Amino acid sequence: MIPDLTATRERLRQNTSTPTAELAHCVTQAQSAACENVFLKPMFEQAQAQLGQAGLGESPLGGLAFSVKDLFDIEGQTTPAGSRILRDAPPASVDCPAVARLKAAGGSLIGRTNMVEFAFSGVGINPHFGTPAAWDGRYDMAPGPIPGLASPRPAVARIPGGSSSGAAVSVATGAAFIGLGSDTGGSIRIPAALNGIVGFKSTARLVPTDGAIPLSTTLDTVCAMTRTVRDAVLAHEILSQRTVPRQPRRLKGVRLAVAEHTMLEGLDQTNHRAFDRALQRLSQAGAQIVNLRLPELGTLRELQATGGFSAAESYFWHRPLLNRGPSARANYDPRVLARIERGAHMAAFEYMELVAARARWIDSMAAALRGYEAVLSPTLPIVAPPLANLGPDPAHDDAFFRTNALLLRNPSVVNMLDGCALSLPSHAPDELPTGLMLWQAALHDDVILNLGLEIETLLQF
Amino acid sequence: MIPDLTATRERLRQNTSTPTAELAHCVTQAQSAACENVFLKPMFEQAQAQLGQAGLGESPLGGLAFSVKDLFDIEGQTTPAGSRILRDAPPASVDCPAVARLKAAGGSLIGRTNMVEFAFSGVGINPHFGTPAAWDGRYDMAPGPIPGLASPRPAVARIPGGSSSGAAVSVATGAAFIGLGSDTGGSIRIPAALNGIVGFKSTARLVPTDGAIPLSTTLDTVCAMTRTVRDAVLAHEILSQRTVPRQPRRLKGVRLAVAEHTMLEGLDQTNHRAFDRALQRLSQAGAQIVNLRLPELGTLRELQATGGFSAAESYFWHRPLLNRGPSARANYDPRVLARIERGAHMAAFEYMELVAARARWIDSMAAALRGYEAVLSPTLPIVAPPLANLGPDPAHDDAFFRTNALLLRNPSVVNMLDGCALSLPSHAPDELPTGLMLWQAALHDDVILNLGLEIETLLQF
Repeated sequence: MIPDLTATRERLRQNTSTPTAELAHCVTQAQSAACENVFLKPMFEQAQAQLGQAGLGESPLGGLAFSVKDLFDIEGQTTPAGSRILRDAPPASVDCPAVARLKAAGGSLIGRTNMVEFAFSGVGINPHFGTPAAWDGRYDMAPGPIPGLASPRPAVARIPGGSSSGAAVSVATGAAFIGLGSDTGGSIRIPAALNGIVGFKSTARLVPTDGAIPLSTTLDTVCAMTRTVRDAVLAHEILSQRTVPRQPRRLKGVRLAVAEHTMLEGLDQTNHRAFDRALQRLSQAGAQIVNLRLPELGTLRELQATGGFSAAESYFWHRPLLNRGPSARANYDPRVLARIERGAHMAAFEYMELVAARARWIDSMAAALRGYEAVLSPTLPIVAPPLANLGPDPAHDDAFFRTNALLLRNPSVVNMLDGCALSLPSHAPDELPTGLMLWQAALHDDVILNLGLEIETLLQF
Repeated sequence: MIPDLTATRERLRQNTSTPTAELAHCVTQAQSAACENVFLKPMFEQAQAQLGQAGLGESPLGGLAFSVKDLFDIEGQTTPAGSRILRDAPPASVDCPAVARLKAAGGSLIGRTNMVEFAFSGVGINPHFGTPAAWDGRYDMAPGPIPGLASPRPAVARIPGGSSSGAAVSVATGAAFIGLGSDTGGSIRIPAALNGIVGFKSTARLVPTDGAIPLSTTLDTVCAMTRTVRDAVLAHEILSQRTVPRQPRRLKGVRLAVAEHTMLEGLDQTNHRAFDRALQRLSQAGAQIVNLRLPELGTLRELQATGGFSAAESYFWHRPLLNRGPSARANYDPRVLARIERGAHMAAFEYMELVAARARWIDSMAAALRGYEAVLSPTLPIVAPPLANLGPDPAHDDAFFRTNALLLRNPSVVNMLDGCALSLPSHAPDELPTGLMLWQAALHDDVILNLGLEIETLLQF
């Protein structure tokens, strides 16, 4: 297990490591084959040059590295969001709040990470700049930096999940301790689950989305991936500028719901096994697990029949770019463009109906979830499929869109709910990564994080 | 001059009148010819029966009468909003917050007032239930109730202005002290100006719109008409549940802007004279009046080219009613239906563009208005035209829509601005009513009301 931020920060405090050594180690990992296609814009030298700044020793992050998804504004840089069409856009004049907060907390910005163009899919493929391979965990790093020891690319390249693909791989391989990303339908939790790390999608309103290129202004959440839940708590505290009260507790008697139907459909063997194992361990620890019928889950497809928020809201945002003419359209990933252009056809009244129907749906869901600390679901029904079968070739489009729908299915429920969700690694050492998702309605963030701290221990091997 | 609420409340405190006598007087006025077509649902007996309740003597309104526009929920009654199509809708289960607050303040609810169907025009005509005539001020009531002395209908029936037509006439004729209404593009200020009374459109967010049938959820403001500014302050304090700090001040040195162009175009003689007279008196009182170019006003038409918020948002609301079939459509006022159905054609992205363009427009306007206590404009460019030329006959449609556009032109600027505005009577006793509008950006309500208290005195004859 690669050491997490909290453990590494502790070693810095005890002077058994230095910020310089830790950053050098991250850079080594970032330059290794395992991080191929992960950094669209490496900032290794800048990060190293800025390490000397005052006050670092007392800061929460102590100079440890974080990576930033390509859709966030960083002062002086363009914000292409994984696209070609924006690569000549004017540079941002200031850091967006999320980046500014991580910097102010003493983080070292190590680079901009690859992503699905404009964040519009959960698979993780970028036809312009290549696709990172999901980290397969075979490289089990000893504690502490090991200069020069870089990781190989996995033997079978599997999809990294998206849209925050590079962010996940940067954290999983040890190139960064925090991967700043965004989650509109699962873009943090999908790659977290496929790369065997932790992804926390907070309640959207808790972190400002300013200075981030939007996919859906209604659903977008700025949040992060980390290697452990305690790191997720720290990252969330920094991003939301609030304190999560720690509530040490036993799992004994805690009421947890398992959402029946929809979320349990079509699980592959690995996910089936991992989810059953998680429930079993929770039961053994005394948690009270209740099967919960949520007929609301069955109405989601109908609710989003006209394309949903992402199509309409991204079309609004992209229209000025698309209107630059046919050559502009040719610059887009065709799979992304197809999804954006669905939004052209939504009527204003349909959009308002969607807003109203969502509000009713949230009320109904929140009422159904009352009385449970959290709901348990597999983050995803499948492990990462090989990249080769889903690549940019149009012959793979059907398989791509099927896979995409499968990956988004469970995580996107929580975005529609305006809720919060934590995805935890739930696989055994000899299995491909899987995720267990704990979720609840809006503003249950502290309960979910505290619960996550306990369940993480329970899931370890 | 009919005594206002504040003066009458004072007489009740001094026991020179009683709530019963005051209510009887209001009922007499409400039943007079001047109030023909004003009350769609009189509640005279209920109001009288409830006068005995405890604590009335200490309450802010002391049992004095208020009227309620037909679009507000009142417990146990249907809420038809001046329409035929909703007359069989299920009754409201609770009072809406605005009504509840006026009741809790000791007001006596004297009845539901007539309005433009679904509030969708500024003229004030209702083809289903008849149209109130603008009060012409000839009946100059002596202080105190004069039982049995009812007012005649004006000799020439002029349009009352809308959409809160009955609310205005109820207040102008002395049938109510407060007329609860709503203002989406001028629906409080237009009838206030045409009936010689005070209309205050607060910043929308200060009063809840729950339990009111919406015209535009973006622009709707729940507010009231009164006979004086001090009554407007009281009504606003009750409706917004906050206190407006009184700031006694001189007008000397106060910087006031006059918005050039647009708002001064096409003034009829009466309005021209009244506006010039107001500026002259303000100058004499030492106010510093600055002509202000607001090029932003010229861009409003383009901003709303696709129909604006009211069309799109009302179509969303009415679609389920319209989908009841062709006979449902036949139940609508054709002029209202035409405006609602424009909203069917707005695309979701156009709606979002409107939201974004409005936000930029507000920023630009607010910046231009910084440094001025308020802007001065004529509330309307014209006095009330005779009703006969604008009635429901389709032959009058062109004249109707031209008049409607003229009436909405100035007031609707403040709704787009998300601002606040006070319309004050500015006419001489021998003139038809005109209004002077003081306005500013959002949350300048207290400045505008305090300024109004001073300017009201200045405008008196």
